[in-house]
This record gives sequence, structure tokens and C-alpha cells, in this order.
Amino acid sequence: MNAIPEDILQHATRLSEAVTRPYPGSRRIYVEGSRPDLRVAMREILQTPTPVSFGAEENPPIPVYDNSGPYGDPNVTIDLLKGAPDIRSGWIAERGDTEQLDGPTSEYGANRASDRALDYLRFEHLRKPLRARAGGNVTQMHYARQGIITPEMEYVAIRENCRLQELRNDPRYAKLLRQHRGERFGAAIPDEITPEFVRDEVASGRAVMPCNINHPEAEPMIIGRNFLVKINSNIGNSAVTSSIAEEVEKMVWSIRWGGDTVMDLSTGKNIHETREWIIRNAPVPIGTVPIYQALEKVDGKAEELTWEIFRDTLIEQAEQGVDYFTIHAGVRLHHVPLTAERLTGIVSRGGSIMAKWCLAHHKESFLYTRFEEICKIMKAYDVAFSLGDGLRPGSLADANDAAQFGELETLGELTKIAWKHDCQVMIEGPGHVPMQMIKENMDKELEDCFEAPFYTLGPLVTDIAAGYDHLASAIGAAQIGWYGTAMLCYVTQKEHLGLPNKEDVREGIVSYRVAAHAADLAKGHPGAQLRDNAMSKARFEFRWEDQFNLSLDPEKAREFHDETMPKESAKVAHFCSMCGPHFCSMKISQDVRDYAQQHGLNEAEVFDAGMQEKSEEFRKQGAEVYRKA
Amino acid sequence: MNAIPEDILQHATRLSEAVTRPYPGSRRIYVEGSRPDLRVAMREILQTPTPVSFGAEENPPIPVYDNSGPYGDPNVTIDLLKGAPDIRSGWIAERGDTEQLDGPTSEYGANRASDRALDYLRFEHLRKPLRARAGGNVTQMHYARQGIITPEMEYVAIRENCRLQELRNDPRYAKLLRQHRGERFGAAIPDEITPEFVRDEVASGRAVMPCNINHPEAEPMIIGRNFLVKINSNIGNSAVTSSIAEEVEKMVWSIRWGGDTVMDLSTGKNIHETREWIIRNAPVPIGTVPIYQALEKVDGKAEELTWEIFRDTLIEQAEQGVDYFTIHAGVRLHHVPLTAERLTGIVSRGGSIMAKWCLAHHKESFLYTRFEEICKIMKAYDVAFSLGDGLRPGSLADANDAAQFGELETLGELTKIAWKHDCQVMIEGPGHVPMQMIKENMDKELEDCFEAPFYTLGPLVTDIAAGYDHLASAIGAAQIGWYGTAMLCYVTQKEHLGLPNKEDVREGIVSYRVAAHAADLAKGHPGAQLRDNAMSKARFEFRWEDQFNLSLDPEKAREFHDETMPKESAKVAHFCSMCGPHFCSMKISQDVRDYAQQHGLNEAEVFDAGMQEKSEEFRKQGAEVYRKA
Repeated sequence: MNAIPEDILQHATRLSEAVTRPYPGSRRIYVEGSRPDLRVAMREILQTPTPVSFGAEENPPIPVYDNSGPYGDPNVTIDLLKGAPDIRSGWIAERGDTEQLDGPTSEYGANRASDRALDYLRFEHLRKPLRARAGGNVTQMHYARQGIITPEMEYVAIRENCRLQELRNDPRYAKLLRQHRGERFGAAIPDEITPEFVRDEVASGRAVMPCNINHPEAEPMIIGRNFLVKINSNIGNSAVTSSIAEEVEKMVWSIRWGGDTVMDLSTGKNIHETREWIIRNAPVPIGTVPIYQALEKVDGKAEELTWEIFRDTLIEQAEQGVDYFTIHAGVRLHHVPLTAERLTGIVSRGGSIMAKWCLAHHKESFLYTRFEEICKIMKAYDVAFSLGDGLRPGSLADANDAAQFGELETLGELTKIAWKHDCQVMIEGPGHVPMQMIKENMDKELEDCFEAPFYTLGPLVTDIAAGYDHLASAIGAAQIGWYGTAMLCYVTQKEHLGLPNKEDVREGIVSYRVAAHAADLAKGHPGAQLRDNAMSKARFEFRWEDQFNLSLDPEKAREFHDETMPKESAKVAHFCSMCGPHFCSMKISQDVRDYAQQHGLNEAEVFDAGMQEKSEEFRKQGAEVYRKA
Repeated sequence: MNAIPEDILQHATRLSEAVTRPYPGSRRIYVEGSRPDLRVAMREILQTPTPVSFGAEENPPIPVYDNSGPYGDPNVTIDLLKGAPDIRSGWIAERGDTEQLDGPTSEYGANRASDRALDYLRFEHLRKPLRARAGGNVTQMHYARQGIITPEMEYVAIRENCRLQELRNDPRYAKLLRQHRGERFGAAIPDEITPEFVRDEVASGRAVMPCNINHPEAEPMIIGRNFLVKINSNIGNSAVTSSIAEEVEKMVWSIRWGGDTVMDLSTGKNIHETREWIIRNAPVPIGTVPIYQALEKVDGKAEELTWEIFRDTLIEQAEQGVDYFTIHAGVRLHHVPLTAERLTGIVSRGGSIMAKWCLAHHKESFLYTRFEEICKIMKAYDVAFSLGDGLRPGSLADANDAAQFGELETLGELTKIAWKHDCQVMIEGPGHVPMQMIKENMDKELEDCFEAPFYTLGPLVTDIAAGYDHLASAIGAAQIGWYGTAMLCYVTQKEHLGLPNKEDVREGIVSYRVAAHAADLAKGHPGAQLRDNAMSKARFEFRWEDQFNLSLDPEKAREFHDETMPKESAKVAHFCSMCGPHFCSMKISQDVRDYAQQHGLNEAEVFDAGMQEKSEEFRKQGAEVYRKA
């Protein structure tokens, strides 16, 4: 085989420091399950003690959900040439329902594999693909429906709980675990996520676990409205072709900031090989839109797409390990003219490709007519469906219209068919929707699609926020997440304008982490408020380092702080630049608290009209606004 | 008098180009009212015609609300030494209910005025202050309750309508004015804002018009839930003292991006003179928190504050022209211990100052006990109350607690007292509130404060978004604005971390414009969707320049676009960098539309199963995805 060129090798083996440097003030922990090979990675944010002036107490570490996989563990040596650790092959093998293939069974995959000219950019350590044994079904839903709790389900249960049960028994967390009652809009979130609950949710179709048997590097995760709200971020090369290693770096960057899944929307001549590098190094599920690659195979001519080409593409990607496919099977012939009077027509790429195909052939698309055949492929590898919303509105004007809701009903029909095959399904949603019309989207989705998880893009709540669409869509995303959407597809500030750069991606992902977390809080997800409470306590006590570390983006928080108060001493100051030492309201509050405590007083006592002398005392003791650290 | 030093002069007479350059593709228009001296400034965004390939039609200009005053009119020569144009002195004078004073009647104001050492930094063209004649009342509420429609009210009516009635009669706007039905939660927004409606809303207390008779430079505006949602931005010098001219520039920068009012939170030894420069050049209402300056007068020792010092400060600022005062009169003695068990105590500066005073003196604050005396000052100048929420929650944990809601009830009592004096009142609100608890804030405010306008800070929907708090709070602001909040106080991304720089301020203001506009859309405010529709039409037709110009921040939209596609030609391309020429879904949609139109077909005809030949025809005509411009 050709040698891997030095520049690729260099880049491939060495991710930039920016994507792998450890989160500050944190440590990686693993929570072991019922077997030694089931170890769930989490991050613990360490805290410093409360300063003496605020009562000197220990502040316990805060465990948080962690998507960063091996890249978040300083003890793991990263070698992109070898790929991420394989954590699931044993579990898959012991089920005894798969067979190892001799090589790719897709025509395209086989051709790429045997093309020696591509050796130089091929991932070296390719496993032979797995497939369900003839007539078999390897979906998590299939196991769930037979009452089987897989290691993947147990993994998910441990991961979702994030040590909450232990914390509840630890007195150091008693105050920090106080939380407001949520409004759940019918979601049924238990106090503890048990493996049995995971199984039940997957069996019912209310949750999906994207777990392709050819992606054993992925850490199991779950998408459903009774679990933590997840976010997806997209990566993809573009006109200016990036190198393969750069694409891997993008994926690692995305999960560093909190992407739960990553969709690879790459195009171009080497996407097959690029995808391989990404999947082999990805500890999160990878999604794709196979019609994009199929379209490239027919030189961009939508009307020349065929079932055979599409089918081959599905198998090609399934055997690489893609965990979920966006499939726009809901775009039916009779929906297309419903878009003619729209302000912005069809804005989904996949939707417009299929609409063009339908018009050109004047018949229903092969995605719709061959849907059962697609299901057979999906269940042979456990690729989850993400049923695409090809007719989602591209403007407020087109929101919730007949085309959009017509397609949604079709997605419901298809969901039933997929479930007949025990295939996992989620449903994609809009788009551009004004706030008062968001809930109808969620309600209709739950009804029409039988509570299959909803996966939405935003929605954007106005059309005129170009340059701020991450924010305009985060407003909608937080709301629809609260109403029950299971996964939010991020939007960057470059939306509608251009391609995001690295900083745009970071900003977009963290913005969506804010929206998803706001939704978890509003639903009253058990333990969701823990980190907020720890943060607010740190804020009250002027523990600056802890504030940075407890933030969703510790690096940005510190950077912003240091712009105004760069000196080390400022980070231990008992005031901040906003108010300065004379005005510090936090400090005055502490005075109030100290006074009440010192005097062992309750409200009635302190404020009894006769206790004038106590106020004298308070004045004499001269509680200072600013105390030295 | 001392000469104004050259550096101040230079800076003062020449604002930077960045704050005054005209918005691209726009022109300033004036809509005249019932008298020639009543001319309401607006901006019109001009549009280019639809390209031939999309049907070649004219696209009419889109009028938008404009806060930029003289700085947005290229025909006005800006001279900061002279101040902004005086538009209201005639209206005030003709009412015949004011008297001109010989000079400042506050002790502090008089001392500053006679201190020759300050001449060098004093605004030159000081008018003598006005005050209501003895026993008089010059509030807009007072006039409204007597059935008088002031020119200010007519101005506001024209401004709020933004030419909507004319547009409704212009066929070019017919499609663009289509709009979804809103959800108004009890707001009663008429189809047309008439001067009589404005009068009625002000009379009832449901809206305020901050209109100090000593600030005739301000263009009248209104804050109420039956009007467009407004936003406030804050300016203020800090530890690193800015020059006076820099402070003026900050104000102009804020209104350029869309601040409807500006709060001057400056501190330091020359705040009196700085404030004068700001007010004399401000076409928007200016708000302050007088207790901050009063505290400086007692060297930061809260317990040494007295009614006399506070009273003198109110008069000092009222005679300068401050339009609304934040007054924390709702912090009562018995509320203070309710904060002792809070996670973050008292986080409002004003609130903590008053709490400290209450504790030190063990009695109710002079703000509360002297409230009627304060009302007498307010009505002599028409300064509106912004009743401060000194006990707002500083963390999710403290949201909607007894301290917060106890204070809110007190604010309701005070509202009644202020209204007895025909004083205008708005109510400040939180803060940090998880989404499911936001609506309760609005509902309680409406009930406890008798529908006085609500003016909220965010609320932030999570505590852990440091560095992204503009976004975390915009999520809450959009929702509370939808529920009925009349004005949203912006939050920057530096919140909790440091002082915002110029770019942070811009980002914060535009973020809040997004939130406020999202709220207007969700309420179904008449005409709110016009700009969105125009934007989406421009987007569909690849009119890039129009897209930039229709955006809330045209400069950022263009800059982001140009990062990926910098060439001029790209701005007329019928595709964009996101999908590239082969995938353009917008173009495919146009193909669908063209096909339906060319064949004069309706849905049934096109998709009748027998019409196979039509699809052949479509294929033959070979609609291209990409057409040259």
C-alpha cells in the first residue's frame, strides 16, 4: 500500500491542542455498570472551598454528562490512525446474531476498497463489516421488544442518571439538589433512569439509540423526550476542500463543546474515505443524508437518481457504521404542488431533490415506494431512521402549512411501517416558526407520529436575524425542547449567509447547549438544576475559578472576565468589575445573612419593632462591603 | 469661561463614522402629523427588483421604526456642542403650565453650576430648567386623564403605526402584509394605533411615555403591552474613566442598533456633567438610578443616606431632563430577612443598598415612607417611575420566591399611590427564572400592579451560560415579551464577567431586538411580519443586497456573507455557499412554481395519475438548478 503522506500523517496523529486540552478544573471519571467492560465516562467539575468570610465549607465535585469520549480523558493516548477505542464489539459479538462479511457488499464500497490509488488516504485499520444474519434483526428496538436489556441500554441508564442517586445520599449535595417543579407537557420522566426504563422507552418507540453494529467506537446515548435533551451539530467539507484530518478535527471540536451526535454532510469525491476516518474516530453517533452522496453519483442530476443507486449508498454507509440516516421519504407527489404558493418554496436540500424527482417522473419517489426495503437494510445494521422534513418551512410565512403538516402525517405512516420492522425512528422538524405556532408542531408530531422522538432545526422565531440566527433559533429551540423535542439540531450565526468557521461552530454548539439545558430545567428533569445551583453558590461566594469551570464554556467565561480584570488577584477578589468594591450587592447580602445567623434570629425577632438596639449593633459592627480575600 | 480643551472638542464635535454612517440601502423619511412641527422620523429600507428568472417585479420599500434620531438623518449636521434638535419645547410651552427657573434648584445642581473649575467640561448651551407651576402637574398621564391628546401622543401613534394604514391600501404590499394570527394572552392591540388609543392607554396606566419637560430633544415613544415591545440598553463609565464625549458616543451607538431607551448608570466625580452631555444629545428617553449618585454623595456608605440627599438628587437629575428613575421603594424592612436563606441573596445594587440601610436603621426606607413626596417631584417634571425590583432573583434557585413576590405586591401598592398623583409608572422584573416559571411573573405583575407596564431584565433561563448570557436571557426575554412585558432590558455576553465593550453592546442590543421582534410576531402585532416576509422573499429570489439591508444588523450580515463569498459577483449569484449551485433548493422550488404557472394547473390537474406527458415535458424543458444572473 502507498505510504500515507507525511502531512496527512502529522495532522492525523496530532489533533490540535485546542480540541483536546482538558476542561479546566475537571477530572474524567468512569462509572462501572454490572460488568467490567461497561464503564461510562463522565466529567467531574471540582470546586474550591467556600472562603472563610462566607462560612468556609467544602464544595463537592459536580458530575456532568460528557460527550468527549477518549478525547476528554488525558490518560488515553489519541492515535487517529488507529481510531477511537472499541467499546461495543464484545457486546455485539456475544449476542451471536451477526455475521462478518468478507468486505463491503455495496458496489460502490467494494470499488473504493479495491482502488489502490486511494490507499494513501484510506483509514488503515478497517474492520470487516458486520451484518445481521440472514433474516435477523439487530436493532436495539428489536431487543427491547423481546424484553432484552442490552449493555447499551444499561450504559445509557448510567449515563443519563449522571450519579444522581449517589448524590442524593450524600449530605454535601442536599442543598445543591433543590430544584423547581417542572412543567412536562405530558412527558413521563422518572426520578431514576433504570435500564428497564430505557428498554421500555426504546421498545415503545418513544426513544431511539443510534447504535450501528459497525460503529462499536460509539458510546451509547439515547434520544427521547423522557431523557435529557440532546443536540446535534453538523460538519462537512465544502467548496474549499478540507483535508481528511481536518474533518476529524471538526468532529472532535464538536463533541468537545457538547455535540451529542454529529451529522456528516460532506460532499466531494473522497467523502467515502472521509466518512471512514470520522466514524472510526467518533465516540458519538454519526448521521448522514445518503441522498446527497447518491446525487453525486449521478452528477447532481436529481431526475437520474434510482432506487438501485440509493440502495447501494445505504448499504455502503451502513457498512461503514453510520448510525442514523436522514431519509426524505415523506415528500409525496401530491405534496409538491402545495409548495407552489409558498413564500420560500422548498428549502430542504433533500426535499427539493425528491420534489424534482417526483415532478420529473410524475410518480411517488422510490424512498416512499421502497420504504419497506429500506427498513430491511436499516435493521440489518441497526441504522436509525431520521425521517426528513423535506417540506419544512423556510420562512415564518410558510410555517405550519398544508405541505408541512401533510408531510408530517406521511412521516407518521412511515413510522408505523418502520416499527413493524422494529426499526428505530425519529422525526425531523422545522425550521422557521413564530413562537405562538411552535407548540402546535410538537403536539401534532406527538399525535401524528405516535410519540416518536422529534428532532428539530431551531426553529427560528424570526426571519430577519441574519448574523444572529444561532440566537433566533435558540429561542425557538429552547421552547420546543421544553414542549418535548428530544434533539435540537444546532444553527450557527452564519446560517443563511455562509459556512461556519471553527469559532462559529463552538458558539453554535454552546448556544444549543444553553437551549437544551434550559429545556431540561423547564421540564424539571431530575438533577438538572444541580450545576446551576453550584454555579450560583460559587457566584455568591466570589469563587471565580469555580464559576469559570462550572460554565458551559469555561474558556470563554475566563477570557471575558480577564478582558476587564486580567490580574490573578482579581480572580480572588470579593467583588467584580460590574459594580466595583463599593456597590457589591452580594457582599451586602452576606452581611444580612451573617447578621441573622449571629443573632440566631428569625424574621419576627429581627424585625420586631422594639429591637432597635440590634440595628445599632449591626451598624457598630460595620459590616464592610469589601473584604480582602 | 475656560476654553474646552482641544481633545474634548475634537471628539465631541466629531462622532466616529461607525456610529453615524447611514444604514445601507435605506433612506430617512418623515411622516407629518396634524401640525407642521410634528414630523415623525422613520427609516425606509429600499429594495431592488425581482430578477427576471423569478418573475421580474418591483419590490416596495419597507418602512421601519427608527431610534437613531438626528444621527440617522444624513441631512442633519451633528454638533454635539449644540445638542440634538429641540422638538418638544414648543409643545411644552403652549400648554402654559410650566415655569422657567432661574437655574438648578437642587443644592448639588446649583453648586456644580457655579463651580467655575468645571466650566471646561460643561455643556455650553444649557437651557434654564422648567418645572410645573406651583400645584401643577405636567405628566402625560395627567393630560391623558383630562382627555387631552398631546402632540407627544399623536407622535407616538404615528410612530407605532409605521405607515401600516397606507401600506394596506397599496397593492404592492398585499402579499407582504400576510401574517399569522397571534396569541396575545389578554393584550388588546388594535389594528390601528390612534392618538385616542394612546391617550386611553396612558390614562389607564397600561402604558408610559417617558417625557421629562427638561428633555425636549427626546422623540416621544411609548412603553406598554399593547404597543411594540421596546428594549433598553445601559451605558456607564466605570473604573477606567471614559471621557464625556465617549459617553455620548456610547449613547449614539446604542440607539443606532436599536435601543429604545438608554439608562445612564455612570458613576464617578463628573457624572453630573456627563449626564448633561448625554441628555442634551439624546433623542431617546434617558433613565437613571438616582440612588447610585446619592450613594456617591455619602462616600458609598449606604447607612448614611438620607431623604434630604436623595431628594436633592432627584431634583438635580429631573432638572437635567432624566425621563425615568429607577426607585427601589419596594424593598421593605420585613422583606429583607426573606432573602437570608436565598442561594444568592440580594443581587440588585439598589436593592442591597436599601436593604443595608433598612437593617442599619431598623426602619422602613425613606423611599417607601416618603413615596408621596417623591411623586410630587416626579409630576413637577414628568419623570416616570421605574419601580425597581431590588429583590429580584439572582439565580434560578431564588426565582419566584417570597422576597421577590412580596416586593412585587408592594410595588403594586406604590403604583396606586403614584397613579393617585397621575404619575407614570412601570415595574421592573427579573432576573434569573427557569422557563416554566416565567409566565407566573407576568401574570402576577399584571394582577398585583394593575397592568402597569412590566420592564424586565432578561430573564436568564439558566445560570451556567456565562459568556452566553445575552443568549440565555434573550430566550427568556422573547417569552416574557410574548406574555406581555412592555420593555426588555438588554444583557450582554459579558454579564456576570465584566464590562461590555462596544461590540458586546451591539451584539447585546441586536440580540434583544431579535427577542422583542419575536415577541411582536408571536403576539400578532399588526404589520410585525412585513419585514420578515420581505426578507424571505428576497432570500428566495437571491437578492443578497436586500437580504443584508432587511436584516436587523445589515453590517454583520454582509460581513458574514463576504467571509465565505467575498466577490461582488457572489452577491448576485442565484445560489449561496451553503449548498452551492448543484443543490439549490430555492431554485428547484422556483422550477416547481414555474411549471405550475406555465401550465395553468391546479393540484388535481398536475398530479392526476393520467398526466404522465406533463412530466415528460417538464423533464424536456430541463429546468436548470443554476441560472446566470
